[in-house]
Amino acid sequence: MSILVVGSVAFDSLKTPFGEREKILGGSATYFSVAASFFTDVRVVAVVGEDFGPDEEAVFLDRQVDISDLERVEGERSFHWKGEYGYDLNVARTLDTQLNVFARFKPRLSEAARQSPLLFLGNIQPDLQMEVCEQVGARLVAADTMNYWIDSTPLELRRMLKGVDILIINDSEARALAEEHNLVRAARAILSMGPARLVVKRGEYGAATFTRESYFATPAYPLEDVFDPTGAGDSFAGGFMGYLAAINSTDEAAVRRAIIYGSVMASFDVEEFGCERMRRLTYDEINARFRELRAITHFEEAEMPPF
Amino acid sequence: MSILVVGSVAFDSLKTPFGEREKILGGSATYFSVAASFFTDVRVVAVVGEDFGPDEEAVFLDRQVDISDLERVEGERSFHWKGEYGYDLNVARTLDTQLNVFARFKPRLSEAARQSPLLFLGNIQPDLQMEVCEQVGARLVAADTMNYWIDSTPLELRRMLKGVDILIINDSEARALAEEHNLVRAARAILSMGPARLVVKRGEYGAATFTRESYFATPAYPLEDVFDPTGAGDSFAGGFMGYLAAINSTDEAAVRRAIIYGSVMASFDVEEFGCERMRRLTYDEINARFRELRAITHFEEAEMPPF
Repeated sequence: MSILVVGSVAFDSLKTPFGEREKILGGSATYFSVAASFFTDVRVVAVVGEDFGPDEEAVFLDRQVDISDLERVEGERSFHWKGEYGYDLNVARTLDTQLNVFARFKPRLSEAARQSPLLFLGNIQPDLQMEVCEQVGARLVAADTMNYWIDSTPLELRRMLKGVDILIINDSEARALAEEHNLVRAARAILSMGPARLVVKRGEYGAATFTRESYFATPAYPLEDVFDPTGAGDSFAGGFMGYLAAINSTDEAAVRRAIIYGSVMASFDVEEFGCERMRRLTYDEINARFRELRAITHFEEAEMPPF
Repeated sequence: MSILVVGSVAFDSLKTPFGEREKILGGSATYFSVAASFFTDVRVVAVVGEDFGPDEEAVFLDRQVDISDLERVEGERSFHWKGEYGYDLNVARTLDTQLNVFARFKPRLSEAARQSPLLFLGNIQPDLQMEVCEQVGARLVAADTMNYWIDSTPLELRRMLKGVDILIINDSEARALAEEHNLVRAARAILSMGPARLVVKRGEYGAATFTRESYFATPAYPLEDVFDPTGAGDSFAGGFMGYLAAINSTDEAAVRRAIIYGSVMASFDVEEFGCERMRRLTYDEINARFRELRAITHFEEAEMPPF
């Protein structure tokens, strides 16, 4: 099954303790679609300015991502985010945000886009996410959001959530959305807002997923070189959704493997700046890391007799 | 095999968002020995004051913990810690510490104590840990420490580490000890200081263990009611060491199951204040939670063919 993703295609200027990059291709839809493209057909809905050129296009086209629904606005510039990470790579400090073309973005979907069976609503304004959702008769809708929308547009976000099957957010976002520190309680609150499944990204600590009846958690793939955490969450979502699309299932066993593929894609993403690592990723590498995650989390049954 | 533990037997005054308790029995050796007593014979080396009475004694004796090496000092009071937790239960704020009898503690071990095959050095002054270590011809030595000793007695700590086989500390302590934010790199640095194995406790995120050749990680048992995190780390260490003692093995498969038993014991500890929950814990409950941790971390193999 093919996936439609709406989100940002942006330029990022990044500084981490290990180096910096000026205006490299980023954005939630970019990271998501590159990761998901290893698993299924992906189509991107987004808007870019005239600074989006052949080099940027190649990132999508090399991965056979369909960008025919990518709107280009002449005379304007693409969304630009400038940020910085300290040694605690879990926390980004935003230095500058220029919405540019995104300020007036009204997603207009092609007929082909409207037919997509799977939809991923990347982290953009909840109203835009809802507009796209209403235009697509998707069988499965997943979404991301962030603290900014949780704080500034809570009502719109709540409306959007009613149409979402799987919410994929991080730890602190789940706690903020539910206004509850304990993650198990936060998950229960979020599952009452609409989504049938919550996926929680925990950065270096891994990921977890909750439904009303089930729970699964995995540690992250252990990395000693995390260069740039930008896009980790979207790469995770891309691997997660891509795998579900590839096997056309959302049963618990499929979702668990999808969480692992998501973790694997995120682990590659952070090894280099931008999409650099993902662009030369191979299936052998993906499958090897999946097996490794299985090996480092496996333990045998035991039973402790009364002593 | 039996375990000897040296550490604190103390009174704690605690405040959490869910309630408070005045002068309840606590201390690293207390939590460790109660948890480990479900798996093997345990003997405690510590010092208490005249405020340690029959009620406190019963916590040990009800669990068949040997307290014949517990030194009692007349006319003095036991170690007292007063602390507070906010909603982020990972961080304790110390309000008051009264060393009392601990200020002049010189561990004097009985002949039986010196014969212990397994030794756990609970979180006390590294010099005291070393003194005990030198008196015991243990086949396996595990130790805990904390940021306070990492900062204030780094040389003593480094000396102590040379005699330790397994170091069991938390996330932030591992980073501080290695002066390295990345946990994989921090682990490698710590493994070069003496211990052949590092066990990292990550609170609500679970636990991980490193040797030079292996890695294993598990998420924590998901709890929606964490009442009092005091003693979680020592209960973990007690379950971990207790299981290794019970099956008399430190091979990788045994250590992995020991990490799970440690996680299980910690998860029970935090459900109520002090040792309250642990005192009425059953083997059925322990084994059920072990099986549950296995069920919520299990996923099947997969192989992604090139798409």
